[in-house]
Amino acid sequence: MLMPRSIRAKPWSRILLLHVFLISIGHGFTEIPVHNGMKNALVIVADDAGFEMGLYNSKCLTPNLDALSKRSLIFNNAYTSVSSCSPSRSTILTGLPNHQNGMYGLNNGVHHFTSFRKTASLSAILAQNGVRTGIIGKKHVGPNEVYPFQFSETEENNDIDQVGRNITKIKLLVREFLMQKTEPFLLYIGFHDPHRCGRRTPQYGEFCELFGNKQEGMGNIPDWTPIYYDPEEVHVPYFVQDTPAARQDIAAQWASMTRLDQGIGLVLKEFEDAGFASNTLILFTSDNGISFPSGRTNLYDPGMAEPMLLSSPFETQRHNQITYSMSSLLDVTPTLLDWFGVEHPYGNDALTGKSLLPLLIKEPDPFPDDAVFASHSLHEVTMYYPMRAIRTRKHKLIHNLNFKMPYPIDQDFYISPTFQDLIKRTSSKEPLNWYKNLKNYYYREEWELYDLKEDPEERWNVYFKSSYQPVVKKLKARLMEWQNKTMDPWICSPGGVLEDVGKYLDHPSCLPLFNL
Amino acid sequence: MLMPRSIRAKPWSRILLLHVFLISIGHGFTEIPVHNGMKNALVIVADDAGFEMGLYNSKCLTPNLDALSKRSLIFNNAYTSVSSCSPSRSTILTGLPNHQNGMYGLNNGVHHFTSFRKTASLSAILAQNGVRTGIIGKKHVGPNEVYPFQFSETEENNDIDQVGRNITKIKLLVREFLMQKTEPFLLYIGFHDPHRCGRRTPQYGEFCELFGNKQEGMGNIPDWTPIYYDPEEVHVPYFVQDTPAARQDIAAQWASMTRLDQGIGLVLKEFEDAGFASNTLILFTSDNGISFPSGRTNLYDPGMAEPMLLSSPFETQRHNQITYSMSSLLDVTPTLLDWFGVEHPYGNDALTGKSLLPLLIKEPDPFPDDAVFASHSLHEVTMYYPMRAIRTRKHKLIHNLNFKMPYPIDQDFYISPTFQDLIKRTSSKEPLNWYKNLKNYYYREEWELYDLKEDPEERWNVYFKSSYQPVVKKLKARLMEWQNKTMDPWICSPGGVLEDVGKYLDHPSCLPLFNL
Repeated sequence: MLMPRSIRAKPWSRILLLHVFLISIGHGFTEIPVHNGMKNALVIVADDAGFEMGLYNSKCLTPNLDALSKRSLIFNNAYTSVSSCSPSRSTILTGLPNHQNGMYGLNNGVHHFTSFRKTASLSAILAQNGVRTGIIGKKHVGPNEVYPFQFSETEENNDIDQVGRNITKIKLLVREFLMQKTEPFLLYIGFHDPHRCGRRTPQYGEFCELFGNKQEGMGNIPDWTPIYYDPEEVHVPYFVQDTPAARQDIAAQWASMTRLDQGIGLVLKEFEDAGFASNTLILFTSDNGISFPSGRTNLYDPGMAEPMLLSSPFETQRHNQITYSMSSLLDVTPTLLDWFGVEHPYGNDALTGKSLLPLLIKEPDPFPDDAVFASHSLHEVTMYYPMRAIRTRKHKLIHNLNFKMPYPIDQDFYISPTFQDLIKRTSSKEPLNWYKNLKNYYYREEWELYDLKEDPEERWNVYFKSSYQPVVKKLKARLMEWQNKTMDPWICSPGGVLEDVGKYLDHPSCLPLFNL
Repeated sequence: MLMPRSIRAKPWSRILLLHVFLISIGHGFTEIPVHNGMKNALVIVADDAGFEMGLYNSKCLTPNLDALSKRSLIFNNAYTSVSSCSPSRSTILTGLPNHQNGMYGLNNGVHHFTSFRKTASLSAILAQNGVRTGIIGKKHVGPNEVYPFQFSETEENNDIDQVGRNITKIKLLVREFLMQKTEPFLLYIGFHDPHRCGRRTPQYGEFCELFGNKQEGMGNIPDWTPIYYDPEEVHVPYFVQDTPAARQDIAAQWASMTRLDQGIGLVLKEFEDAGFASNTLILFTSDNGISFPSGRTNLYDPGMAEPMLLSSPFETQRHNQITYSMSSLLDVTPTLLDWFGVEHPYGNDALTGKSLLPLLIKEPDPFPDDAVFASHSLHEVTMYYPMRAIRTRKHKLIHNLNFKMPYPIDQDFYISPTFQDLIKRTSSKEPLNWYKNLKNYYYREEWELYDLKEDPEERWNVYFKSSYQPVVKKLKARLMEWQNKTMDPWICSPGGVLEDVGKYLDHPSCLPLFNL
């Protein structure tokens, strides 16, 4: 348990204790290596989207995303480092896991989590380096001083559904942003689709699939042509129970996906019409897994795996190709900094992610023994369930720190038809038609190891099997190394206490509690 | 489990959703009922102090506090609502439990908890009503917009030891504040003694008992005459093991107490010299229990019971008398508002505390069936252990929401000689000489009920005893009513999910998880 951690003090002091205004020191306006004049970037983040897209072999109709994929590198192994809205967005916008930037949970209401005030964010760094920044739609991170955008139309000054789901309004806001021709720029668009909305505004349907569909009381989104799905015909993924209630829920989610897709089509058209299609990098992804069992808030693959497209107008050789490189939303900030030729103010070692731009040229050969890391803390403030994970191509190791307590369920998912169906069937002892039951969903081992080649659905925890002990040992060491490098306050939990000041300043240590 | 909570929506919207700038509407400068001209207030908060004072029958020498008690009402049943620094101070300064003002844990470093930006605090309300406000010493709450002070010398702009333990500096700051004669005023002084400091600055001793004692390297506090104690002669309270290590720790704490006491003497002298002794209400208390086992961070009495003195220059009839009224630090804000004749901007029902001023006149006769309530959330961000409690004169009921996990230990206490002694003795199987052992200290039942008349040391949990079921039922109902009135986000934890929007807007409900 006693673990000298001498390398730890250094990054901690380097990243957290320096002030954000140091950002520009030694950098100023960076010389941007240009291809054909100015280079811009468009980041599109969907809300709780999974793989319900034609390009990922779903029957959900997403012609615009499919078309974008034709001129993109398509990611088959992209993962969020945290399956929770605000924390995930904070990692996208800083390159730092939530435990390193302070955004341990949701940013709204009684949760009011925020990033440390001295965190260096992508938009702040770029602005310091002469890049114009804009955000449209869902922001959901704070405080504002950490996440400044020069053009900002978000839930902070708009109705979230209007600015996040009304694709006509989004189109016009994009047009407004692009009208100011100043380059280079970063535009970040946070669609609110296909996030659930049945809890707060049930009149629009579970996924707001009726919002703006021109029916009475639903409003009108002129640019949207709704598409609805027959619950009998949707694909039920392995982690959702195959029941009428769940099928109907999925069908509603698919309808919401079509609005996202059409919105993306409108945004891309604005870029073409304004003449920016030829010099703008486009990155599309989602913040976290879909809001279904084992999805959002989980670090199982349905919560952690993300769709991702990266489209460069310059590097076209791998358009419509698939990359199997292990990639993380923690790579977004390094990728954008690379694109703009801007160094991170705290140096190349400040972030644990990597630029994805080299993948646009060629696939690594051979693959490095690469891995992605994950760190979940709270989501809602009442939902303390810190998890740390490492996922390689072959294995996933999850450390559940609050493992003796039942896994918590968020207010939004709890009230969903799918989860209510599980509750109802459990209490009335009906068949669940599900790959788990509530008891084993709630109660998890402290450590979970999955052999993803043998068991891609993560059904069999092999952590205790003797044949896996070499894997366990190796993955634990790598996970601990990452927690150490990213200054994880939970690094000693739940069995120890981190001491890192006073006589432990030069050798931070996990000291034992003898409590487990 | 299904619980209609129709009264809940109302206070939630009234307190949290209104903006702080509404504070002054309908009030402006309140007419202050005067006795002899202007009335001022001095609030003195010690840091982790317990009952180590002559006036509470301790042999620790505190002549200044003892003298103050001679002209004060002495509280025998005062309690904090949360045994954690920042949360407790937030409750003192708002009258709202931490779960209602958002300060769920510590305000510093990686914890960075803050109150909701729309919380109405005492200093903001008083300033809106023409009362000049000042703070000297430990503030440890945020954000600044919620806790504004016109005169502010705290850890935010000073070294905390200088402004919190250097009693000469504190004296001079008080003098500076008083030199501006504008009345009425509120001065809040947060002494840092007798907080431990062995973790960060071990050179000053475990309780900074050597800081400023004129020895080499210790600095000089001219006004301080150190008093040291023989470990053999200190009183070891029932909740601390009687061992040489713990005795030495207690002796150091007592030395730190003498600096606090002498500092209070200096402050009161400044008030006399400036002519404010005759029109200033003085309230002395501590933020939470002492940093020893079952103390700080616990809701057992060693963590929850506080010393309290209330001294009015006008109501002198109960000077040097004891009140047995159940009183809470949640009563401080109502008491001060009452003193200044200022109404809370959200009305008399906004706070669950009460003014203590009537006690200055006479003891209630007969005693009402009064109770104090407590709510602990996190302390350090890694220390999730929400507890809710009600304490009457006869019983205490504690609800441990994260009860399956071991009770967490904070970094500061962990490294203390007393806890290290327990760790060492446990691991080497030496006798503990303690009323508990680590295992039963870590692992607590979900519900604990203590019969305080029979068992004032809270050793025997009688929650499951059939003869106590009527008490359990009654206390649970009162606790739930308080959680409801104070809009506790954890009100449904750990067995349910709170739903309070959409179709539950008019009847917020705890819906069952079937998870325990």
